Amino acid sequence: MSELIIWTYDWVPEGPRGFVRDLRLRWACEEAGLAYAVRTVPFDGRQTNHLSHQPFGQIPFLSDGDVEIFESGAGLLRLAGKSEKLMPRDPVGEAQTVQWMIAALNSIEMVTVPWWFLEISGKKDHGLADWMGSRLGQLEKVLSERQWLAADRFTVADLLMADVLRVSKVRSFGARPATENYVTRVTDRPSFKKARADQVAHFAAADESRS
Amino acid sequence: MSELIIWTYDWVPEGPRGFVRDLRLRWACEEAGLAYAVRTVPFDGRQTNHLSHQPFGQIPFLSDGDVEIFESGAGLLRLAGKSEKLMPRDPVGEAQTVQWMIAALNSIEMVTVPWWFLEISGKKDHGLADWMGSRLGQLEKVLSERQWLAADRFTVADLLMADVLRVSKVRSFGARPATENYVTRVTDRPSFKKARADQVAHFAAADESRS
Repeated sequence: MSELIIWTYDWVPEGPRGFVRDLRLRWACEEAGLAYAVRTVPFDGRQTNHLSHQPFGQIPFLSDGDVEIFESGAGLLRLAGKSEKLMPRDPVGEAQTVQWMIAALNSIEMVTVPWWFLEISGKKDHGLADWMGSRLGQLEKVLSERQWLAADRFTVADLLMADVLRVSKVRSFGARPATENYVTRVTDRPSFKKARADQVAHFAAADESRS
Repeated sequence: MSELIIWTYDWVPEGPRGFVRDLRLRWACEEAGLAYAVRTVPFDGRQTNHLSHQPFGQIPFLSDGDVEIFESGAGLLRLAGKSEKLMPRDPVGEAQTVQWMIAALNSIEMVTVPWWFLEISGKKDHGLADWMGSRLGQLEKVLSERQWLAADRFTVADLLMADVLRVSKVRSFGARPATENYVTRVTDRPSFKKARADQVAHFAAADESRS
């Protein structure tokens, strides 16, 4: 089997550490027991320095032999194809997993990320709060009725949804007890803790070479 | 083979006709030559009347025998698995198709839909225009260098990206000639035209029973 390589930045400021999206791929590899290496592209000049690998200047991207794939959601789908620990192999379980992954990206994160962006940019009354409250309320109802999103077990859909929901400002937006329990449950997994600690250590180690 | 059923609303107002997302699944079935039926849930009361099928009250969802799957992106991935006309079968071509589908949903639409939402709600200077301009500029560069997003051929990634980009306000945001050519090229396909005409006719036919 070819070596999996997760590409991330060589360094980021302290704020985003623990939240940079290479964490999604590290976490999935840890859950599945897939061996992987981490390599870097420069954070400085990221707007243009790796556009041949990622046309929006973002990370992560994943190398898997001849295949290179960007978008964390696409990387997770690829990893899910390698391990039943991430996605069940029966058609119904697989469809549920995929639909909840896409829901995390296109129904929840499509609202939470712009909301967060406008919040930190200091815009008041920017008009996305009601929409976000509505979507998160609908998700709260789902999570109040089940422990996992798909197939009655942990899947990569939970990994992705919990990663979307654990962003501090989103997590503290309103009282949603089932969602809070869910985020706590999913991020209590040892694979998340290892992936998070590894990412934080990776960026912290780069502080010295920059100082 | 079990019958594919695309679920949409029984009616929508005139404004969104031609843009409701069941069109993505109709279009994909037309491209692939897959037989399908269209069934409906009520538009009135959509916030609560079909939450057992779609927890956000949205459409479309897709029935495929025992499998029911919501999120248009997830439905497209499922249809892509049924036909090489939608997605190549070699690992590199498949990875490129999936990454560009996720890019359409999570890097482009994640900005264009909230931008559009704030535009139509009448917010001025709402803070998303620069971000959208940057993303669409990066995509313009990609589209100025190639005809199709993945694998040097039409794929479901083009279907999805063109559907995201053809929204009128997005299409008229700035001058992006390569993007405009791309949207024109992709939406000139007979399968798009048939899917669009069928959707418009479906909703128009429902006007009478409401009047």
